[in-house]
Amino acid sequence: MKIALAQLNYTIGDFEGNTRKITGAIASAHKQGADLVVFAELALTGYPAGDFLEFDDFIVQTEMHMQQIAAECRGITAIVGGPSRNKTGKGKPLFNSAWILGDGQVKQLVHKSLLPNYDVFDEYRYFEPATGFSIAGIGGTRVAVTICEDIWNTSEVPLYQRYPMDEAIAHQPQLIINIAASPFHYNQALIRRQVLRDNALKYRIPIIYVNHTGAHTELIFDGGSMACDSGGNVREALPFFSEGLKVIETDAAWYDASAAPGVAVDDENRDISLIHDALVLGIRDYFSKMGFRKAILGLSGGIDSAVTIALAAEALGAENVHGILLPSEFSSDHSIDDARQLALNLGCPHEIIKISESFHSLQQTMQPFFGDLPSGLTEENMQARIRAVILMALANKFGYILLNTSNKSEAAVGYGTLYGDMCGGLAVLGDVYKTDVYRLARHINRSRVIIPENSIVKPPSAELRPGQMDSDSLPDYAVLDKLLFNYIEKRMGRRELEEMGFDPHMVTRVLKMVSSNEWKRYQTPPILRVSPKAFGTGRRMPITGKYSG
Amino acid sequence: MKIALAQLNYTIGDFEGNTRKITGAIASAHKQGADLVVFAELALTGYPAGDFLEFDDFIVQTEMHMQQIAAECRGITAIVGGPSRNKTGKGKPLFNSAWILGDGQVKQLVHKSLLPNYDVFDEYRYFEPATGFSIAGIGGTRVAVTICEDIWNTSEVPLYQRYPMDEAIAHQPQLIINIAASPFHYNQALIRRQVLRDNALKYRIPIIYVNHTGAHTELIFDGGSMACDSGGNVREALPFFSEGLKVIETDAAWYDASAAPGVAVDDENRDISLIHDALVLGIRDYFSKMGFRKAILGLSGGIDSAVTIALAAEALGAENVHGILLPSEFSSDHSIDDARQLALNLGCPHEIIKISESFHSLQQTMQPFFGDLPSGLTEENMQARIRAVILMALANKFGYILLNTSNKSEAAVGYGTLYGDMCGGLAVLGDVYKTDVYRLARHINRSRVIIPENSIVKPPSAELRPGQMDSDSLPDYAVLDKLLFNYIEKRMGRRELEEMGFDPHMVTRVLKMVSSNEWKRYQTPPILRVSPKAFGTGRRMPITGKYSG
Repeated sequence: MKIALAQLNYTIGDFEGNTRKITGAIASAHKQGADLVVFAELALTGYPAGDFLEFDDFIVQTEMHMQQIAAECRGITAIVGGPSRNKTGKGKPLFNSAWILGDGQVKQLVHKSLLPNYDVFDEYRYFEPATGFSIAGIGGTRVAVTICEDIWNTSEVPLYQRYPMDEAIAHQPQLIINIAASPFHYNQALIRRQVLRDNALKYRIPIIYVNHTGAHTELIFDGGSMACDSGGNVREALPFFSEGLKVIETDAAWYDASAAPGVAVDDENRDISLIHDALVLGIRDYFSKMGFRKAILGLSGGIDSAVTIALAAEALGAENVHGILLPSEFSSDHSIDDARQLALNLGCPHEIIKISESFHSLQQTMQPFFGDLPSGLTEENMQARIRAVILMALANKFGYILLNTSNKSEAAVGYGTLYGDMCGGLAVLGDVYKTDVYRLARHINRSRVIIPENSIVKPPSAELRPGQMDSDSLPDYAVLDKLLFNYIEKRMGRRELEEMGFDPHMVTRVLKMVSSNEWKRYQTPPILRVSPKAFGTGRRMPITGKYSG
Repeated sequence: MKIALAQLNYTIGDFEGNTRKITGAIASAHKQGADLVVFAELALTGYPAGDFLEFDDFIVQTEMHMQQIAAECRGITAIVGGPSRNKTGKGKPLFNSAWILGDGQVKQLVHKSLLPNYDVFDEYRYFEPATGFSIAGIGGTRVAVTICEDIWNTSEVPLYQRYPMDEAIAHQPQLIINIAASPFHYNQALIRRQVLRDNALKYRIPIIYVNHTGAHTELIFDGGSMACDSGGNVREALPFFSEGLKVIETDAAWYDASAAPGVAVDDENRDISLIHDALVLGIRDYFSKMGFRKAILGLSGGIDSAVTIALAAEALGAENVHGILLPSEFSSDHSIDDARQLALNLGCPHEIIKISESFHSLQQTMQPFFGDLPSGLTEENMQARIRAVILMALANKFGYILLNTSNKSEAAVGYGTLYGDMCGGLAVLGDVYKTDVYRLARHINRSRVIIPENSIVKPPSAELRPGQMDSDSLPDYAVLDKLLFNYIEKRMGRRELEEMGFDPHMVTRVLKMVSSNEWKRYQTPPILRVSPKAFGTGRRMPITGKYSG
């Protein structure tokens, strides 16, 4: 059997556009002689469709467009992910289904059994799990069609009561197809390969895997669709972070393959080039799917805004990314020079707008109320907020989206001004720890100097008062980031962190900072997710809670 | 059997404080001769505990404090809600359990069967459902202990496959106890009474129901704990929106009661006094649980800020609520007079801070970039943002929390400035449609004029340019609110709305406004939830989606 893997970039709820993409790929696969073409989970609606799924019309649209797509399936079978109605009269109103289309009609529906409901996933909010497993006969081949999580219940402490793969195997399939919506994080490609290998080896059967590519606000889909033989060896793979269509043909050797080696996953050494590519795609798709072309951001001369503008320039084209230098009386000369040099290196348009006048005018306005009270955090926040007013004024006037430049370390401990430097339509680095921001900077400079060396080597400072340094109020980033990683990604509590050797006073202080800033993070822009645990929809913490681990 | 219903206001993750409250109530119930004292669902941890539940230490703390509470149970049995570990080795790591404590120890655990995962509920994120039903013997009485949703699968289109109540009844209990965490919305008290009545009547058995009171950021718990006889008649009820402990004793008449009349639920006529009380509790608890006492807000002379300050004054004491008038050159004299009169009526401290100077200074800063471009939305947003900078400066300097005054109609259509009037720690009216804001104003004025009549009767305006009226860019609020209600609360799509008689052009326009402002609402403050579908964690829409119903 010749099978086409169609890895596409869908837009959520764009039935017309997604149908066009899907039927285009069907035609192309047919032309290449494929018997079967496979699309991703919930391909037709886009993923995640969220509460759109609660609108009856959204399901009507799905059914209508599936019929349209089926009409194009002549001489070829297509597997397309989409919701379908639960007609049993009990349970959630929908299934998450693989629609099997052929001979111009809908031939069969296979429903997802395991519904992920952790981290960013809310599938049990909408879908009823399948209760049994049925096999699909496609061109004389017995195919077990599974949906994403259905092949993931492999842990020693299984998250679900059922093993759909065991149920599938009881039907003696010759091939497993898995359609997925598996978002990127820095280890996901490795874990995914491991899961496919484990399944192939356990059941001695080839597996075809098709994922989404493209980004939807927070979630970035990396693609990485592939075909594994019965030994779990990757025989064919589609690219990361871009669309692709590939026709494969399994032969006898696929069914009698030797075992692939295991995949090593190393939590602590994130692959920075993957993160780089994910962020570029995340920016590009946010803009194109929102219907915008141009970005604006503040350039401080520091590392975070430098990395953000470099990523944005790659995503949108340098000419579409406007860097604004907003110096105050506390900004150092070298910061202005570094920021200007950066914009020149990239070829981004840039302007200098001094904030001192607006700041002084506002200080005068506040004078009757503040009197002789000492200047402090309030005045620092005022400067950050004036910058935001200026950036938003430019964004509103000229149709830019403001990019937020806060990193994950800052976001965690609340080191940032709400309605100030925490503004923006999209937070590019909000899931990247400060130490990884430096690694990104080195990666960006890998073939030529884009980010001035000085921005990389100088000690980090918000420059909101004379001589201010991040290290005045925060632990060293190398230590802080390690602590945060274990607290946030690994869900370790105070005692476990102390046992790891972190200073107890620092643990108490940092955990408290993280918890007491939930209210602030509630109002931050959506963050491009590149880790297994990002701030945003995947991390749901009470704001008024009295607990911090 | 004498049973005490303990309706308490817990703090999420405050194990010490919650344990103190619980043991205090046990002692008091014991003193009053109760054999059994019943607390709410997840009482010990507070509800919702969110991803705190993923910390092992959080469960260790639960177990430790349950032992402490059990030690106080001598001569009395207590039922306390809390998570417990799933030791089966399969499925989610926790159960949502009723801990039955007596004789100084943990006697039994009963797990929740039906885990709500819609709207604001995420229970399947953390908990494994119970697989069977076990009955508890308490003081010689066979008691079916159920947890909240377990008695709610009563619809003609059941949301779950199982009917725990049928399973419970098979064990021939003499009494049903339901411990709940059932948050307020304007119809919830009626629906809850209906559900209790239906269960009591169906199974001819009395039901004891214990809920939380108190608010946790968005979610407000109204209490309303009660005891129903076998006819579904409410025999005893605890107050709404406050703590209470009540000892009841069932006699033979409870078991042979005539049927209570059905409860009529009318979606369109929200009980405004309940909404009022809910909002007051929501404000009060947000401040007390965040450790703050004082609020600040901008007073425009309009109805939204007037209602917000009146509610805040009731919640926090007038002396703790600071109203700031921030007139611009476009503010009318009557607006300033109305706002001042309002503050005087309430006895709230207030100040006038003119924004024109800061606005002009900022306009000058922008002049080289804006040149001769016509003044418009950008300049309107600049004014709103300058107000926010001033309010936040005062909040930061003096330790206030800024209250947001946006209503649900505005929030829906994006009529507001992000980082401007959309700022605040808490959005008081964000789940109240404009037409209901007027009803709240009349309710606030029910015994004396607090809100000046002029603020109620004048046509609404943002006063950001000369002669501006809301009606310039929005449909009449009476029509808009009805449309929004059916779209948001009822999930009706375009076609259903047109069939209801709404103008097709208006439907298209309004639905598009709602959808295209998801990015803005993503960054708004948490909203006090008083409806079955509020903006916030209960409504999860894609930002980059191409669909609007």
